[in-house]
Amino acid sequence: MKEAIGHKRWAIAEGYIPSYGNGPEPAFTSYETACILNTSDQDANIKIWIYFSDRDPVGPYELKVQAKRTKHVRFNDLKDPEPIPLDTDYASIIESDVPIVVQHTRLDLRQAENALLSTMAFPAATN
Amino acid sequence: MKEAIGHKRWAIAEGYIPSYGNGPEPAFTSYETACILNTSDQDANIKIWIYFSDRDPVGPYELKVQAKRTKHVRFNDLKDPEPIPLDTDYASIIESDVPIVVQHTRLDLRQAENALLSTMAFPAATN
Amino acid sequence: MKEAIGHKRWAIAEGYIPSYGNGPEPAFTSYETACILNTSDQDANIKIWIYFSDRDPVGPYELKVQAKRTKHVRFNDLKDPEPIPLDTDYASIIESDVPIVVQHTRLDLRQAENALLSTMAFPAATN
Amino acid sequence: MKEAIGHKRWAIAEGYIPSYGNGPEPAFTSYETACILNTSDQDANIKIWIYFSDRDPVGPYELKVQAKRTKHVRFNDLKDPEPIPLDTDYASIIESDVPIVVQHTRLDLRQAENALLSTMAFPAATN
Repeated sequence: MKEAIGHKRWAIAEGYIPSYGNGPEPAFTSYETACILNTSDQDANIKIWIYFSDRDPVGPYELKVQAKRTKHVRFNDLKDPEPIPLDTDYASIIESDVPIVVQHTRLDLRQAENALLSTMAFPAATN
Repeated sequence: MKEAIGHKRWAIAEGYIPSYGNGPEPAFTSYETACILNTSDQDANIKIWIYFSDRDPVGPYELKVQAKRTKHVRFNDLKDPEPIPLDTDYASIIESDVPIVVQHTRLDLRQAENALLSTMAFPAATN
Repeated sequence: MKEAIGHKRWAIAEGYIPSYGNGPEPAFTSYETACILNTSDQDANIKIWIYFSDRDPVGPYELKVQAKRTKHVRFNDLKDPEPIPLDTDYASIIESDVPIVVQHTRLDLRQAENALLSTMAFPAATN
Repeated sequence: MKEAIGHKRWAIAEGYIPSYGNGPEPAFTSYETACILNTSDQDANIKIWIYFSDRDPVGPYELKVQAKRTKHVRFNDLKDPEPIPLDTDYASIIESDVPIVVQHTRLDLRQAENALLSTMAFPAATN
């Protein structure tokens, strides 16, 4: 493989985790996911910042994606410094110390992990 | 955080708000949304222009997204200078005085705010 | 408004129009659409080329999008030089003499024109 | 037509093929697809690399897309050097010796090949 593909900063402007048990459907039906691909030969140290409509951003949430690996990060699993609140609009910035590719996907747990939507995240103009 | 991420002009070529009560499904089942993320340390003054197939564009619709905040703007809520007509193809241009990121999402109200689709808007080549 | 936004050549790599009447669902349930936005002050003369897996491309299909207008073009409606065959993988190139923005959307007619998917088309690097 | 449109390296950060027969729905309900468009006048020699969360990438999977043709490649059909495991997160890199356009689409076989999602893949900054 050639040089690592991607950028070091990405944005996802849409995010929303529905709450449990408030409807006729199964209580928890979807997962917000940031699929991260690290094609470089170095581990990627990732920092995620969560933006809200009515208070300051929270973060960084820190995690690692090993060299030449992919990790599908579920926003529901981010717990430190604090869980992402349910029923709340949010957005996110993903930063890495090596180039990565980020794709935003929402999974529907009722359909064997079928995705409901997917879009590439937005890469910062400067790598 | 480093410098603000994004562009000052974005385009969404697809838009359609179905009318009320014309089918077996719940009358009003989806929301067209422009999710806007402002990572800068200044408030973003936003102007939205709506384009149609058969008449001149309408706008600007004006709103503000505060510094380091996200706002999920529902096209259904845009009222001034005039509501967006139902059952009508439209497109939109979103302009800001600071860099922003814009993601186009359609929510399905029947499924606890699950999204039906999502795509990054198209950024103008010149920032 | 400032200068026109977009590019003069766009690609959509995915396309498929299902045939009529071959299942329990309503016979014709979706529309492939290329949503075109022309923000310039000149009419856009559009040429569409359809690519196949096993024969030469067909086109150009010619149409116009007026200045400061949007047009949601259904591939099903393209008839000249020939209709797009059903149950067939295809892809498309959209060319314009002024900058435009192109978004690929598939509509589901069973749900009051809700979209099933949407993504920005791919713009050619050279405008 | 003018020069070929696209890039020679693309990334798709999301991938998942559900296993057979583990639910009330029809056993195999979706296809992960990389839709490739080759507008050049030369055949494209394609190499696909699959990335995982816990082991080294596998590849190359090799295939050809003829000049001025499109091919909708189903990841389920990739068999050499080994089939892509089911129920497993993966990502992919698609390389070509001529410029191509790549769109990631997931088809739902229960609905006459309707797509569940679609997004342009991410092009490498250097062509």
